[in-house]
Amino acid sequence: MDKVVFFDIDDTLLDTSSFAIMARKAAINLMVENGLPLEKDEAYELLKEIIKEKGSNYEKHFNVLTERVLKEENHLLIALGMITYHNVKFSLLRPYPKTNDILIYLKSKGYRLGVISNGITIKQWEKLVRLNLYPFFDEVITSGEVGFEKPHHNIFDEAVKRMKGNPKKCIMIGNKLQEDVMGAINAGMSAIYVNPNVTPEEEDLINKGKHDIKVISNIKEVRDLL
Amino acid sequence: MDKVVFFDIDDTLLDTSSFAIMARKAAINLMVENGLPLEKDEAYELLKEIIKEKGSNYEKHFNVLTERVLKEENHLLIALGMITYHNVKFSLLRPYPKTNDILIYLKSKGYRLGVISNGITIKQWEKLVRLNLYPFFDEVITSGEVGFEKPHHNIFDEAVKRMKGNPKKCIMIGNKLQEDVMGAINAGMSAIYVNPNVTPEEEDLINKGKHDIKVISNIKEVRDLL
Repeated sequence: MDKVVFFDIDDTLLDTSSFAIMARKAAINLMVENGLPLEKDEAYELLKEIIKEKGSNYEKHFNVLTERVLKEENHLLIALGMITYHNVKFSLLRPYPKTNDILIYLKSKGYRLGVISNGITIKQWEKLVRLNLYPFFDEVITSGEVGFEKPHHNIFDEAVKRMKGNPKKCIMIGNKLQEDVMGAINAGMSAIYVNPNVTPEEEDLINKGKHDIKVISNIKEVRDLL
Repeated sequence: MDKVVFFDIDDTLLDTSSFAIMARKAAINLMVENGLPLEKDEAYELLKEIIKEKGSNYEKHFNVLTERVLKEENHLLIALGMITYHNVKFSLLRPYPKTNDILIYLKSKGYRLGVISNGITIKQWEKLVRLNLYPFFDEVITSGEVGFEKPHHNIFDEAVKRMKGNPKKCIMIGNKLQEDVMGAINAGMSAIYVNPNVTPEEEDLINKGKHDIKVISNIKEVRDLL
């Protein structure tokens, strides 16, 4: 058997979004308590806007936040925000409860595993190393490294090439319909979409092309499919 | 009294160099144990060369290290090195035993305090915030912010301006003769040089211009001078 399973990282192997929210809220609370002249809710909403505007991989959200509110950077508040954000994020960083089970199960079934992830290379590796998940994966392909983000087919093509695989025998597992699922389909793979709340529009899209797409609500259901 | 005392941060308020050495050694050990094909001593020497070449504020020393040894970046090794470096560095980060005593003493005597430091603004603030030293200082002036490094007089001039001070009433305390001491003297201040191992050449330089320079071997001796 030469089947390959690729995983997305964020919100697929681990709960990135909710720990980022908690980390940001903790950071904002401390910044407001130390003098950022906004209500905590207002400050959090403004931070969300800045993240949306600059992208989540931008590294100076807190600089921009203080600049917008105070008309100049406030280094004490930026440092407080940044330290708190990182401390909380790394304290919370855990895989989903069933992530390790599924990875062990797939290895026991002879699958080769890889990662295809949008993000800054070292940040994505950092998560895999801190959680000790990297030994499961033969290859980790990031958009930072390849220069193309999912759903662009180049990142999927590069992943297949590095795994010396055949796209027809590759399965992509992810939580984003366009990026992970349609990206993989367009690169000739099949896909498993992990989402407990699929909308009717998404269902239409999934069924339309008669593509090989399975939908599950939790990563633990991978076991029933593979 | 309107006397102002400025402090350097690294190796003046806290022991940056020796904790950086320990953090780098721990990172190198882990990288070698996980496959970097060098002896630990060799790898550490190579890292030191790279730091010398790229400067200590460059952010990708471990990337360059893997690239030099393996002809390409190895993200697992880079992530292991980086995580270990930061974990060890922040575990070790402490002020010198007498730093807080001296800062409290100077405040009790009515001095206004500031920081003049070469480095990336957020990294220098991070140290002051993690160690909770920032409340002692009215102003923190970094080269990252000003665009000029000590010993350039612009950074000292900016510091005096922000403190609304008079250079003649300002004292700079630091561990580097050119950067801290001569820089301050050239900007019209007096200086205290903290160094337990002053060389004869340094002594000549210190005595030559009949400048107001005091030499102490440990920061705790500031108490005898001010």
